[in-house]
Amino acid sequence: MIKHALNAHRADDFAGWYQELIAQADLAEESGVRGCMVIKPWGYGIWERIQKLMDAQIKAAGVDNCYFPLFIPLSFFEKEADHVDGFAKEMAVVTHHRLVSDGEGRLIPDPAAKLEEPLVVRPTSETVIGAAMARWVQSWRNLPLKVNQWANVVRWEMRTRMFLRTSEFLWQEGHTAHTDEAGAMAEMLRALEMYRAFAEGPLAMPVIAGEKPENERFPGAVATYSIEAMMQDGKALQAGTSHYLGTSFAEAAGIKYQDKDGGQQHCHTTSWGVSTRLIGGVIMVHGDDDGLRCPPQIAPHQIIIIPMLREKDADEDQAVLDYAKALKAQLARPLAFGEPVRVLLDVGAEKASNKRWSWVKKGAPIIIEIGPRDVAEGKLAVIRRDQMYKDDGKLAVTFPEKNAFAGEAAALLENIQAALHSEATARLHSNIHRDISDLEEFYAENRKYPGWAEMQWARPTGAALDKIVEQLKALKLTMRNAPIDAAAADGVCFFTGAPAVERILIGRAY
Amino acid sequence: MIKHALNAHRADDFAGWYQELIAQADLAEESGVRGCMVIKPWGYGIWERIQKLMDAQIKAAGVDNCYFPLFIPLSFFEKEADHVDGFAKEMAVVTHHRLVSDGEGRLIPDPAAKLEEPLVVRPTSETVIGAAMARWVQSWRNLPLKVNQWANVVRWEMRTRMFLRTSEFLWQEGHTAHTDEAGAMAEMLRALEMYRAFAEGPLAMPVIAGEKPENERFPGAVATYSIEAMMQDGKALQAGTSHYLGTSFAEAAGIKYQDKDGGQQHCHTTSWGVSTRLIGGVIMVHGDDDGLRCPPQIAPHQIIIIPMLREKDADEDQAVLDYAKALKAQLARPLAFGEPVRVLLDVGAEKASNKRWSWVKKGAPIIIEIGPRDVAEGKLAVIRRDQMYKDDGKLAVTFPEKNAFAGEAAALLENIQAALHSEATARLHSNIHRDISDLEEFYAENRKYPGWAEMQWARPTGAALDKIVEQLKALKLTMRNAPIDAAAADGVCFFTGAPAVERILIGRAY
Repeated sequence: MIKHALNAHRADDFAGWYQELIAQADLAEESGVRGCMVIKPWGYGIWERIQKLMDAQIKAAGVDNCYFPLFIPLSFFEKEADHVDGFAKEMAVVTHHRLVSDGEGRLIPDPAAKLEEPLVVRPTSETVIGAAMARWVQSWRNLPLKVNQWANVVRWEMRTRMFLRTSEFLWQEGHTAHTDEAGAMAEMLRALEMYRAFAEGPLAMPVIAGEKPENERFPGAVATYSIEAMMQDGKALQAGTSHYLGTSFAEAAGIKYQDKDGGQQHCHTTSWGVSTRLIGGVIMVHGDDDGLRCPPQIAPHQIIIIPMLREKDADEDQAVLDYAKALKAQLARPLAFGEPVRVLLDVGAEKASNKRWSWVKKGAPIIIEIGPRDVAEGKLAVIRRDQMYKDDGKLAVTFPEKNAFAGEAAALLENIQAALHSEATARLHSNIHRDISDLEEFYAENRKYPGWAEMQWARPTGAALDKIVEQLKALKLTMRNAPIDAAAADGVCFFTGAPAVERILIGRAY
Repeated sequence: MIKHALNAHRADDFAGWYQELIAQADLAEESGVRGCMVIKPWGYGIWERIQKLMDAQIKAAGVDNCYFPLFIPLSFFEKEADHVDGFAKEMAVVTHHRLVSDGEGRLIPDPAAKLEEPLVVRPTSETVIGAAMARWVQSWRNLPLKVNQWANVVRWEMRTRMFLRTSEFLWQEGHTAHTDEAGAMAEMLRALEMYRAFAEGPLAMPVIAGEKPENERFPGAVATYSIEAMMQDGKALQAGTSHYLGTSFAEAAGIKYQDKDGGQQHCHTTSWGVSTRLIGGVIMVHGDDDGLRCPPQIAPHQIIIIPMLREKDADEDQAVLDYAKALKAQLARPLAFGEPVRVLLDVGAEKASNKRWSWVKKGAPIIIEIGPRDVAEGKLAVIRRDQMYKDDGKLAVTFPEKNAFAGEAAALLENIQAALHSEATARLHSNIHRDISDLEEFYAENRKYPGWAEMQWARPTGAALDKIVEQLKALKLTMRNAPIDAAAADGVCFFTGAPAVERILIGRAY
């Protein structure tokens, strides 16, 4: 029986485990401000890695970064009716621009400084970017117009959970305008594919890309596509979305262009985004009962070197430090994933064993300890975080030669990345069930972590769809997406008995 | 008489010139949201360059990036009285978390969703980061604690000017906690020196680093230091600040540590920041009557290649394009400032001459045009943006050999950077006046762009200081800072006649 670093275990208490992991891995914490978290250095470092890698791909796709206002006048939202219906319930509203003393030592919003038109803190930026695009687009020559911003957004949430659902979160939002539907659809699918490949690559997180059913569309969109990842409790996490908005936002904002024949046309627009929610996904896909296992490609530090200093013999400690520094330089030389290896020499004041477990919980991919005997023998003690135990439950520490290990470290990091991906992929595929005849029985209360159902359906709309949504809701289920890569439908609709037109994934979700 | 690209000229109408330059260089524009701007791709690209270079220095100083909440509960501000006094007048206040329809097709803040405690949109984050530090710091072993965030902040401004004073702006804010004053002062000065070197280096913008007088301190600070840059109209721009906050914020937030003797002590804290205001400084230091001259180190693209395609002869156009692509590959190979040269091949649909002037206005450091004759002769047409005219007023286009130019391009970029810096440095020094006997006369209304005065003074406090501040205000002057590198005082105070203790810079300011 292994004594793991976390008290809560995934198999028993997934929610408690998630919360404890975030605290113990020093990723984030409650801020004292309702629904907002503080993202701590290790958590923010992961976000910086995600930003860096994703931003390069956004730029490579010819999308320009910009920055648009945090505040959106209320009137902007009134223009696109479906959009405001979808968001109106959960926005932070700025009504005053000054505070004054109430005369009793407290501050209050200054009644004399009430805004004529309240401002909404952006929940997403279609409306304000649409207004800019209307200024920027004149002719077909200006199209396609492709912009992106990295920003904070706010959606007032009643029940929050760190990284997954917070009132304020960080994200990127891409917005593009095109002459026609074909161009907009192609861009929307390009962004979807970028997200899919990014999840499977840097995040080592397998996902299913597909189209959301009508009832799950972004407010105002014609089509919404998503990537869905499976957490270790079998629940789905919508990890990224890409929307084709038709011409409705262009009509609301007046994004028009002169076509080649001199006529005026409305643009077809898209938007697409991923957020700090991805970090929640990485935790729930790769974490274990000892903490996070951070995929090397997004780990702020990939290799940690812990010198075992005894503070008894200064010469001995110096020899250990010198050896560790030389190793650090050696490890940082080769490229892993096309970038220099990120090595940290941990010289903090903590005890070496505390450091080891701190890095285990944070999920540094490789942890190296160096003591005087290692220096004498030219060796290292190495823990590979993703495969930390031997069959007998003991820590799988290896003792390679220093120079041999240095030559293989970059390949080892790439191997860890692949191993995490393949472990998660196997779990995803073995938990998608295609032979379910009774959803109620399959998703019975006492069944732990049941995974997803892939069902054939006729894609009904209106009241028929509402009925299915209600039926699923009673089982706490939602439709996730109709996978792009699913087999063609060849049967009847599970819900209506009509001829099926596609397959749809169903599951519990975050 | 040169016909310049901008209609407004610096010498006649500095404010109009600034506004026109920002529009013509496609840096930013009004957003339609009061006091907030849209930062367009070229402007945001400059900010990304600033972020990238500055972030590397912040990390190298052992400061960890984090992210803290956008919203700060009102009660946090009530704790530090001096701080709230300084900010209370200009904050955006969130009072509601939901909108509802008013029944007449308009949206209003939902009266049923009024927040019990209003939230302030952060004007700066000392209070909320202080609350986090109080949780994180237990013992002297946790110190120093050094964090930074890149974020948007909001200070409600009545009169706004793009990049210089907008209600929302982007910045970094560093916050550190230390065991004692000496440690905090050293960190505060480290950040100041980082800003000074950054301005003089990547921004090619000479600055004077020094301490702000008491009346100009950050609300709640014990000492505020700044870097001050001189714009081409002789006004000062405070381009970065670093504050020693003493123990007052630690006392308000409860940031305490156990010292080595087991006693409880309050931390000494600092904060320091620079913002998108730096871009305004770069414009007003380096811009000319043809637009921006962007320092190569922060230019999103350093070299622009414009192929002159005539769309008459497909083979000829293809030869020009092939030649341009080969040149691009050649130019991107060497390093300038330790980074690969950033080259853009502009294949947009615009006419070549429009492209040229568009890049002149944006201030790309080197603009290359390639036509069929250049291909035949193995040459290029090169415009060096910082020295664009010959003595006779004609464009100084040179026609170097392609390969020779490619070999020298990186050095040329470094040369342009140095030339911009040296031009601005000469202007700064020749416009600091140390022999002024009558401020009123020197700063007479009809005198254009008078520059700064460096005066000896006794550094009075209280009413004596207030009197000086009022006296200067009547001349639209403020004290900028007491330069660290100024000569020692050797005379009497210009204002009081008492023995002087230091020299202080005085000027008009943004």
